[in-house]
Amino acid sequence: MCGVIGVSGVSDAARVAYLGLYALQHRGQESAGIVAVDPVGRAKLHRAMGLVSDAFTEASLKELTGDVAIGHTRYSTAGSTVLANAQPYLVNYHAGPLSLAHNGNLTNANELRDKLVRDGALFVSTVDGEVIVHLIARSKAATIDGQVRDALEQVDGAYSLVISVGRTIYAAVDSRGFRPMVIGRLGSGLVVASESCALDLMGATVVRELLPGDFVKIDDGKILDLPRLAPRRVSRCVFELVYFSRPDSTIFGESVNHVRRELGRQLARHHPAPGADVVFSVPDSSNAMALGYSEESGIKLDHGLIRNHYVGRTFINPVQALRVQKVKIKFNPVRDVINGRSVVVIDDSLVRGTTSKGLVGMIKEAGAREVHFRLASPPITGPCHYGIATPTREELIASSHSVEEIRQYLGVDTLEYLTLGEMIDGAGRRNEWCHACFSGDYPTPVQLTLGQLRHSSPPVAIPL
Amino acid sequence: MCGVIGVSGVSDAARVAYLGLYALQHRGQESAGIVAVDPVGRAKLHRAMGLVSDAFTEASLKELTGDVAIGHTRYSTAGSTVLANAQPYLVNYHAGPLSLAHNGNLTNANELRDKLVRDGALFVSTVDGEVIVHLIARSKAATIDGQVRDALEQVDGAYSLVISVGRTIYAAVDSRGFRPMVIGRLGSGLVVASESCALDLMGATVVRELLPGDFVKIDDGKILDLPRLAPRRVSRCVFELVYFSRPDSTIFGESVNHVRRELGRQLARHHPAPGADVVFSVPDSSNAMALGYSEESGIKLDHGLIRNHYVGRTFINPVQALRVQKVKIKFNPVRDVINGRSVVVIDDSLVRGTTSKGLVGMIKEAGAREVHFRLASPPITGPCHYGIATPTREELIASSHSVEEIRQYLGVDTLEYLTLGEMIDGAGRRNEWCHACFSGDYPTPVQLTLGQLRHSSPPVAIPL
Amino acid sequence: MCGVIGVSGVSDAARVAYLGLYALQHRGQESAGIVAVDPVGRAKLHRAMGLVSDAFTEASLKELTGDVAIGHTRYSTAGSTVLANAQPYLVNYHAGPLSLAHNGNLTNANELRDKLVRDGALFVSTVDGEVIVHLIARSKAATIDGQVRDALEQVDGAYSLVISVGRTIYAAVDSRGFRPMVIGRLGSGLVVASESCALDLMGATVVRELLPGDFVKIDDGKILDLPRLAPRRVSRCVFELVYFSRPDSTIFGESVNHVRRELGRQLARHHPAPGADVVFSVPDSSNAMALGYSEESGIKLDHGLIRNHYVGRTFINPVQALRVQKVKIKFNPVRDVINGRSVVVIDDSLVRGTTSKGLVGMIKEAGAREVHFRLASPPITGPCHYGIATPTREELIASSHSVEEIRQYLGVDTLEYLTLGEMIDGAGRRNEWCHACFSGDYPTPVQLTLGQLRHSSPPVAIPL
Amino acid sequence: MCGVIGVSGVSDAARVAYLGLYALQHRGQESAGIVAVDPVGRAKLHRAMGLVSDAFTEASLKELTGDVAIGHTRYSTAGSTVLANAQPYLVNYHAGPLSLAHNGNLTNANELRDKLVRDGALFVSTVDGEVIVHLIARSKAATIDGQVRDALEQVDGAYSLVISVGRTIYAAVDSRGFRPMVIGRLGSGLVVASESCALDLMGATVVRELLPGDFVKIDDGKILDLPRLAPRRVSRCVFELVYFSRPDSTIFGESVNHVRRELGRQLARHHPAPGADVVFSVPDSSNAMALGYSEESGIKLDHGLIRNHYVGRTFINPVQALRVQKVKIKFNPVRDVINGRSVVVIDDSLVRGTTSKGLVGMIKEAGAREVHFRLASPPITGPCHYGIATPTREELIASSHSVEEIRQYLGVDTLEYLTLGEMIDGAGRRNEWCHACFSGDYPTPVQLTLGQLRHSSPPVAIPL
Repeated sequence: MCGVIGVSGVSDAARVAYLGLYALQHRGQESAGIVAVDPVGRAKLHRAMGLVSDAFTEASLKELTGDVAIGHTRYSTAGSTVLANAQPYLVNYHAGPLSLAHNGNLTNANELRDKLVRDGALFVSTVDGEVIVHLIARSKAATIDGQVRDALEQVDGAYSLVISVGRTIYAAVDSRGFRPMVIGRLGSGLVVASESCALDLMGATVVRELLPGDFVKIDDGKILDLPRLAPRRVSRCVFELVYFSRPDSTIFGESVNHVRRELGRQLARHHPAPGADVVFSVPDSSNAMALGYSEESGIKLDHGLIRNHYVGRTFINPVQALRVQKVKIKFNPVRDVINGRSVVVIDDSLVRGTTSKGLVGMIKEAGAREVHFRLASPPITGPCHYGIATPTREELIASSHSVEEIRQYLGVDTLEYLTLGEMIDGAGRRNEWCHACFSGDYPTPVQLTLGQLRHSSPPVAIPL
Repeated sequence: MCGVIGVSGVSDAARVAYLGLYALQHRGQESAGIVAVDPVGRAKLHRAMGLVSDAFTEASLKELTGDVAIGHTRYSTAGSTVLANAQPYLVNYHAGPLSLAHNGNLTNANELRDKLVRDGALFVSTVDGEVIVHLIARSKAATIDGQVRDALEQVDGAYSLVISVGRTIYAAVDSRGFRPMVIGRLGSGLVVASESCALDLMGATVVRELLPGDFVKIDDGKILDLPRLAPRRVSRCVFELVYFSRPDSTIFGESVNHVRRELGRQLARHHPAPGADVVFSVPDSSNAMALGYSEESGIKLDHGLIRNHYVGRTFINPVQALRVQKVKIKFNPVRDVINGRSVVVIDDSLVRGTTSKGLVGMIKEAGAREVHFRLASPPITGPCHYGIATPTREELIASSHSVEEIRQYLGVDTLEYLTLGEMIDGAGRRNEWCHACFSGDYPTPVQLTLGQLRHSSPPVAIPL
Repeated sequence: MCGVIGVSGVSDAARVAYLGLYALQHRGQESAGIVAVDPVGRAKLHRAMGLVSDAFTEASLKELTGDVAIGHTRYSTAGSTVLANAQPYLVNYHAGPLSLAHNGNLTNANELRDKLVRDGALFVSTVDGEVIVHLIARSKAATIDGQVRDALEQVDGAYSLVISVGRTIYAAVDSRGFRPMVIGRLGSGLVVASESCALDLMGATVVRELLPGDFVKIDDGKILDLPRLAPRRVSRCVFELVYFSRPDSTIFGESVNHVRRELGRQLARHHPAPGADVVFSVPDSSNAMALGYSEESGIKLDHGLIRNHYVGRTFINPVQALRVQKVKIKFNPVRDVINGRSVVVIDDSLVRGTTSKGLVGMIKEAGAREVHFRLASPPITGPCHYGIATPTREELIASSHSVEEIRQYLGVDTLEYLTLGEMIDGAGRRNEWCHACFSGDYPTPVQLTLGQLRHSSPPVAIPL
Repeated sequence: MCGVIGVSGVSDAARVAYLGLYALQHRGQESAGIVAVDPVGRAKLHRAMGLVSDAFTEASLKELTGDVAIGHTRYSTAGSTVLANAQPYLVNYHAGPLSLAHNGNLTNANELRDKLVRDGALFVSTVDGEVIVHLIARSKAATIDGQVRDALEQVDGAYSLVISVGRTIYAAVDSRGFRPMVIGRLGSGLVVASESCALDLMGATVVRELLPGDFVKIDDGKILDLPRLAPRRVSRCVFELVYFSRPDSTIFGESVNHVRRELGRQLARHHPAPGADVVFSVPDSSNAMALGYSEESGIKLDHGLIRNHYVGRTFINPVQALRVQKVKIKFNPVRDVINGRSVVVIDDSLVRGTTSKGLVGMIKEAGAREVHFRLASPPITGPCHYGIATPTREELIASSHSVEEIRQYLGVDTLEYLTLGEMIDGAGRRNEWCHACFSGDYPTPVQLTLGQLRHSSPPVAIPL
């Protein structure tokens, strides 16, 4: 998962993009980058590993002059944590400087890449988005609009992206619309962002969300709608609402906070915990769900777990040395809330189960009489091929274990998940969700090895 | 404010202290340091500016060998952000290596320092705690116990401190008991910490809180109670419960989470907001208060403000450049919760008023119909002379403005504070609180310039 | 100017390359990089700005596993001091990882680049060598040997380069042979380097120098001579002997130290300074010349200038603030040697004249009665288009001033240069030198804007 | 060994001190520091590990405002490479900020320190100079002049030091005069430095060298000679001339360059190498000696060894891994000069013998027919107790081996040293040298463990 930003016609655009990336920090902490384009069309790039606030200094922002900018913040995925994979890309092609910031995952990147390489293209990273840049540069289309469209029509999978060519910005969302993207107005200029919360911090107001297949061009403070991309069955990622997006964002037309509260209510309706004394969330992602559960069930809400917010930073080794479970670094139980009580613990989802197991252990040590674990989404049984860094099927506990087995593993008294139907009801009863990781119903053809660029033949270049 | 840790008889004591400091990070982000003492009595110090996780690396922890350690994390106060002021101090005196980690503020530090300097003492920092080290080194008492007592009897004000002399650890709380301190057991060893939440992360179990005037010696896994310090009227800092300590700690015999919830209930009882649609907190410090308010009032709880937890890190200039209020970087309103509603906003306290004004502005922009601001403590009218870095009286809005004036400044429909009595009732109806910053009733004689070491004469050495 | 290294069939090849680069540090201080290839053909790159010893750490060398490596150290040239321009390049092309380290300057890089860009090639740097990589990747030749040859036959100008494709290393010197390159044996493996001094430090023994047009392939400890590149008139860079190469190297079949001593003798023969008391060098590049001058003339040699060898490091601003001439930071006169004497100062060459003027000022302040300046090469009247970062013609003092005018500018009593013929006699009376910067006799067609990639159209991407 | 600087009455004094330290870099590369005092008497300190150019940035120099400054650069000695030992010291005592920069070694530091500690003094470093600061602060003398004198009269051994008290600078050289120190004028202000070469770079002109026992006070651009310290037999360190000082300095009234040339001549007169073809130095310290040898003997001078000047920087591990002798990193032989010849190698002194053995190996590998090693000083048989970091007696090869044994160890054909008398003749036939390391004739009573502060009892504090 990643966050992308575009800014056009706003002075000091890189600083505005910086604020936007800052608000999208939850979408990726591995690296951050900004390309800025100045009035004569010169583009400069700065990118670095780490958080947005570490990646940029006053000095680096000063270098990024201009009123056009695009930005990117990248999620950490195993094996490719190298600067060469940080975005945006910036290259010179025949129409001038070309830069790209991509959120999503292309499902046919390997075939396209293999073909391009056979034709003499040189790849400098192992990231799927790089193929788009090559496809644009090699397009025979007469116009730049046509070259970009040419590229987008060849790639399949999930993409919500921003491209700059010279001083023009293009924004597009694939026709299935997996990932959110929104356009806003800032003074006489325009901004694009992965989520509306970034518009708030940039000081922009929402113009509209980009719909599946939307392909727009932004220039001189004007949005020009280019012909839409070929339509496909819409499949919005429900996990964005359940977990990924920030609660203060509105995506796919829904308030994330509102949906999460509703998911909590659904849990209470269909998966009650009669006799429980108190309900609390695993903070912060399931706060709204716990609140909904409490409202609907009448079970008192409390704060049973305190989260140490300094954990975002790299944590060094000593913990392992002391055999302190990582979860203990991040969460601490409030004994006063838990001791002697029957507690309902609300979490948004359960992936490997290791963190939850650690949490349950802490809750029981703090004196819980009974622990009722409730999940505001169904069991995750398959990987995401559209940009969320879920682990392989083997690591997903629900891919090979029954709910009862998981309950025993966690050591809780009861364990219940929302069903697919209950979740979709909570998310807004629409027939346009991607819930492949829960249901196995993938909206695109899926190759054997996706998600990650195939390291095809043994020889491969790794710019560290 | 600061956090202090002591560890004795635990292998790899510095790593245990590191975890303890990590849990006390909220008590100070300016600098962190650890002294470790090895089996033959050699003491080593590492200290650095910044957060605990930045100040220490695997390499620096490896250097800190030994089974005895003390640690310190320091709160940022204006004008003295220099490494020389980071604690612990470590010096050689005639009985061997002596180190000190101090939480609190000595009210007679200036006189003591002036006298020591006249007698040839060399000071290397501008921090009050340094006088204690000199007093110990110059004591004529025959035993080390006596030398430490000698020093403690000469200083006045607030101190909860840990001292190591050779391989022995001393812990003491001044007789008024301003600041918390707790002892725990970890395997066959012992630990000391400012708050119980640090014991949780270190894996220790509570032995007991240190009471006002307690003076103990820890050696070879045993606690030896030394004769108590001369008694004074107890005056526990009520602000530790209202704001400073972590909700998962138990201090002064009270669960912080429980007290805060009760303060929220007090607010609802005495300062209702009839007709309001929703109540929410300024996260995270007033979460429990908002929950208590909602329970007692029946007004629905929601999450109206989302906090960006990446803000802990240094934030660079661009924000100012863009005239983005700092508060916007830290908080974002949830429009869906606020728009068209009459909202009750709960905060723990109000200092300068600037942050609250910014928040109110954001809440109103998000469409609030009415804003009712409620504070879970009385107006702050005076500075703290006992270790909390409140601003000067001039900067405290309530020292020169009426509640009605503050209401107008904030731009809210109603503004109400807990009264002193209501707060004390909520905190546990005991007659032993220091509430000087609210009431002006200072438990010690107060000099004109306190809190901060007087920069007496123009010439002063500043080791950067 | 740059230094290049290749290593094949030597365990821990990156560390060997590191030593080689270290010995070639004088050929470039802007950036350093190494690509290592492991036994299964995976290539990894590490590059960084600054000196070799700063660019690499134990950790970065540990990552660079394998028995094949190429390395590069880059000279600082204005306007392009960015990491993206650091070499080696490393890309994936259809035959696997391809890396390049280039010393020299291609005179037709702009046309080739323009054409490649029109054909959809994406450039990530502003350095001329990048075209070679694209040409290889786009070659239609059936074999890798053929693809590399294809590329080399299209580029014109100066190149002494090392290329790795998979685990094979190619080394080539353009047919005019501007820059030196030597092959050595290290155990059962082979190494390639810009100068023989690097072989000494790597512990290798010389196999042979590469001659102009040599094109070899190194694999499994064997050198395979590929058919030579199309012959051109040989034009070895005489400035390598005069100034650039290290005195302990043997290049173009000549001992650099020996040639410089001979140049000093030539100076004494043809440009005596009768009545002078002492002769000294501007250390260290003209040490051997001063020695030769003293021997031939009988004038006593001494050390009149001491060089501060800590100057290599970045020197910060304060100097300017104090109006200390930069030259004073680097050199200090020995008053005892100079005071009251008539001195002969020997330098290798004179470019802008500013440093020499500063030196002369210092020498006169130290009490010199007379100053006779002697240069062991002719006046430099034109830029180098073959890889030496001489300034533009406008900045070359001898391009627009007579020797008498320069003498007056420097403020010396006499100023004499070697003539072209005298220099060539000293360098070994061969008819195969490039002396274009002295004579204007450029061995290749020269475009208007060379030496530096033309920033053709205003829009250009600058990855910082 | 260390370098010290004082500046008074010069605007931007810290930058001037920075230049001075830069010129004294050869006297110490472990750490560097500057204290600056502003017009109202506030003193600020910045110090850091490493070279002067690394220790200071534009930002740190900007902080050091004022027209008075003292600076220090410290030589690396084993076991104490920690920031706490970096100078200058800066403390507040009753008369204001007091700072100290010390060059030399106090022979009674341990007794003084033990006594001070018994009296309650707190030491923050393990360096001998710290006792002086405590002695000043505890002096009962009525005036500051008296307090400083009080301290100086109690310490024994070698010291050339600069002290600032408020805005006044004191400079003193112990009565035996082991180490050099010189005063210069810079505009209307004054500077003090360890060697005259620092005056050159600061742009100052020599006023006078401080003589043994000189004790001066500098204030408002005026030098006030305070009564001289009690006289002792003068014993100037001859090793400063042989090796330590820069050749462009004049110390003890002698040009270092001139003395070294004369030492080379002495070598040639008394230790000829008949039949040798060429003579060369181990650069750069013995360059002048080789020149003198060549002149006197008529044997041709050449450059047989090239020194890599980038070596000053930290060199990382790989070398060991490759078993490359460290000496090879630093020096490379010029085969052309050496091959087939009988060579005379001139070095200033021989300490452990390991470097020389490595050099000889390289010279022989380069084809030398015969190697005649000549040393411009006698065998070093004992440690220095006055500030030069010679190794212990056990490590000094000449303390336990005869010249013939050393010759065999080095593997040379002949090995000859200057005798004590020949060296003193060369240094200027005066009866006031300290040559204890050659002769065992120590000018002060010498304790068993000197040179290094005794780590008396096991418990000791080590601020890392």
